Amino acid sequence: MVAPLKVGIAGLGTVGAEVVRLIETQARVLAGRSGRGIRVVAVTARSKAKKRGVDLRGIEWVKDPLALATHPGIDCFVELMGGSGDPALSAVEAALGAGKSVVTANKALLAKHGLKLAKAAEKHGGALNFEAAVGAAIPVIKTLREGLAGTGINRVYGILNGTCNYILTRMEQEGLSFAECLKDAQRLGYAEANPSFDVDGHDTAQKLAILASLAFGTKVAQSAVYVEGISSIAPEDLRAADDLGYRLKLLGVAVRTATGIEQRVHPTMVPKSSSIAQVMGVTNAVTIDGEGIPPITLVGPGAGGAATASAVVADIADVARGIRANPFGRPISQLQDTKKAPMERHEGGYYIRLLARDFPGTAAAIATRLAEQKISIESIVQRHPNGGAAPADGKAVPVPVILITYATHEDAVRRALAAVQKDKVISGRPQVIRIEKN
Amino acid sequence: MVAPLKVGIAGLGTVGAEVVRLIETQARVLAGRSGRGIRVVAVTARSKAKKRGVDLRGIEWVKDPLALATHPGIDCFVELMGGSGDPALSAVEAALGAGKSVVTANKALLAKHGLKLAKAAEKHGGALNFEAAVGAAIPVIKTLREGLAGTGINRVYGILNGTCNYILTRMEQEGLSFAECLKDAQRLGYAEANPSFDVDGHDTAQKLAILASLAFGTKVAQSAVYVEGISSIAPEDLRAADDLGYRLKLLGVAVRTATGIEQRVHPTMVPKSSSIAQVMGVTNAVTIDGEGIPPITLVGPGAGGAATASAVVADIADVARGIRANPFGRPISQLQDTKKAPMERHEGGYYIRLLARDFPGTAAAIATRLAEQKISIESIVQRHPNGGAAPADGKAVPVPVILITYATHEDAVRRALAAVQKDKVISGRPQVIRIEKN
Repeated sequence: MVAPLKVGIAGLGTVGAEVVRLIETQARVLAGRSGRGIRVVAVTARSKAKKRGVDLRGIEWVKDPLALATHPGIDCFVELMGGSGDPALSAVEAALGAGKSVVTANKALLAKHGLKLAKAAEKHGGALNFEAAVGAAIPVIKTLREGLAGTGINRVYGILNGTCNYILTRMEQEGLSFAECLKDAQRLGYAEANPSFDVDGHDTAQKLAILASLAFGTKVAQSAVYVEGISSIAPEDLRAADDLGYRLKLLGVAVRTATGIEQRVHPTMVPKSSSIAQVMGVTNAVTIDGEGIPPITLVGPGAGGAATASAVVADIADVARGIRANPFGRPISQLQDTKKAPMERHEGGYYIRLLARDFPGTAAAIATRLAEQKISIESIVQRHPNGGAAPADGKAVPVPVILITYATHEDAVRRALAAVQKDKVISGRPQVIRIEKN
Repeated sequence: MVAPLKVGIAGLGTVGAEVVRLIETQARVLAGRSGRGIRVVAVTARSKAKKRGVDLRGIEWVKDPLALATHPGIDCFVELMGGSGDPALSAVEAALGAGKSVVTANKALLAKHGLKLAKAAEKHGGALNFEAAVGAAIPVIKTLREGLAGTGINRVYGILNGTCNYILTRMEQEGLSFAECLKDAQRLGYAEANPSFDVDGHDTAQKLAILASLAFGTKVAQSAVYVEGISSIAPEDLRAADDLGYRLKLLGVAVRTATGIEQRVHPTMVPKSSSIAQVMGVTNAVTIDGEGIPPITLVGPGAGGAATASAVVADIADVARGIRANPFGRPISQLQDTKKAPMERHEGGYYIRLLARDFPGTAAAIATRLAEQKISIESIVQRHPNGGAAPADGKAVPVPVILITYATHEDAVRRALAAVQKDKVISGRPQVIRIEKN
């Protein structure tokens, strides 16, 4: 009988406490699946006194994450403190340096220092597992690392932030404004007091950077991700999406293009028939386009203590079973530099909503500017406010116009809209949303 | 550098040829992911002369699957011949007996002999991998075996047969009959000339038996699965489902109940809002309900040469990496006997469609019979044929009545409907379809 795997856990919040509980209650099944026992032997957290609802008797309390990371009595260091800096960074580095395996749910740490940490894991022979960092219990890391080991990937994209999807779902279903839905999300605990990290797309960008590295064998680099958030989305965009056969989602998209690997996070129109369009509320989903095979979509909870703990425990079980995958799917020497594909060269369809000062004269002017950039229009919808009734004072009222373009380049769209703005035929700035086809 | 994994492939149809091609074209990535090379060194198939579009030069041609299975030059035997009997069975047994690892896509073999083969794998130390046997490239086996290693499973259910889902989708979207859609499916190559294996639910039952074993730690046993097919489904059932907020799918469901593990395959009403309800055409999907976490749904192609080959190659890569999982997730000694939970004790809601001879008198009679069995009715819909116009001859015409019950036991439903039939207040036999809540 192999000796049990000895685990040390740093961070005993909701996730950490649930990991302790699962390892205790599922001991027999875990031992059966792993071929050896798994035991939590030491923990550390900020407060020893805090009530956590789990029995920590018989588990050593270590004062300092660094001391736990290099504790001679543990084989596997579980980092659940969060944050891309210390103490998480130094503790994980120390554990890997000591030849221990590391399991972490820390997306920020991986997006920023993933390459350095993977190098340390490779050098010293420990595993570096992080299924919980993206999509919690949805097995997306395992699927990219192992499940599609022999299949080239063309594109991976998904809804990676439950807060944004909750807000967009409410806006769509109830016609509410972004601000109202954000307030509700905060009240329900789905959004932080400072919501920027979620709603401005940075959380999605960190997760996308990790997925892109696994899918394409590039060095993980959050800085290579183009990011736009959802705060500019208006209820009329969601209404128009619905009319046109789309849904509006904040997507993270990593795709192989002629100019390199595009990594981008932005509000996106997706066809209603796509699997990703069906994903509502706080649920997350990832779609993987493998070479020659129809898309595979994984849907589930992207956050939550139990779902995150489930993935952490599965990662620990893999360590117990002796699985040592390359953290990013390939040896460090095979990982390629991430060239940030310029968004100006992005190719795709566009949704453009603008306020025409005087329809149809303006429409002709806009069409001309788009034609100059060789942009073809798939559809144009003009909605009269007030059901089309002429205003009482006889003055022209700005009229919302919505255009859908065929696939074109982003710089052409930008040039055309700059010219339209110069022409002074529209009020305010146009709303531009990219379309992602399935 | 570790020596490359030497692979022998038995069966060179679409899948086998694609496996050879992938191992060749993805060699570098596979070696990077696995830590060692993978080489096809020997093959066997019925016809050596057949054109397959892959280069077999440099690969030994072995005449007989059994000889290949025990070939001293191979480490891993890949069985792609199909069928639950010989030569597949004896070849896989021989390979495992010789201590080799086996990768197979053969659901029939596993559903029938999985336990015996897993025992042989455990005894002799080889891997037995079969990701492709259920849902092709959808990583459902890996997710149950490894991704949810530490999470108890309450239920696993899914759309496991593309033929049936294609037929039901066409029936729903175009109002066509089962027979018409089956004919189209046959014309398009989605259904066999003898469609019984698919449309009567046996293909789904084999796959479900495998999933149930992985989810619940029971000994795989196709005979423990209750099976109903889709041939009795009428367009009016699909129309009624739509009106009532459901979609109609052929589901395989394995669920932990008070009386044991229920394994059942039958046409099922699923709420339109569920992930599984969105799955259209030949696409497959599996939903896993883990303890304490929201459902995880995996969606993708359930068949096809490239998708199946993708899973086979991933399984081979796992063998190359040295991963030896218990075939059914736990050691043989921990697998429990499968007690067939009696369908009479199944608990759930029911859709009942019948032809009342004379409405509303009949409705009262039916309501009485249901009440006698303590079945509560959630809704009742009565549709007059001919828009409710009285027939010209003044005679009463049978009227379709649709009932939705609250959760009740199957035996209560059967008794109530037997009494209704005895009362002679309905024409023909009632249509009964189970409802599965998400």
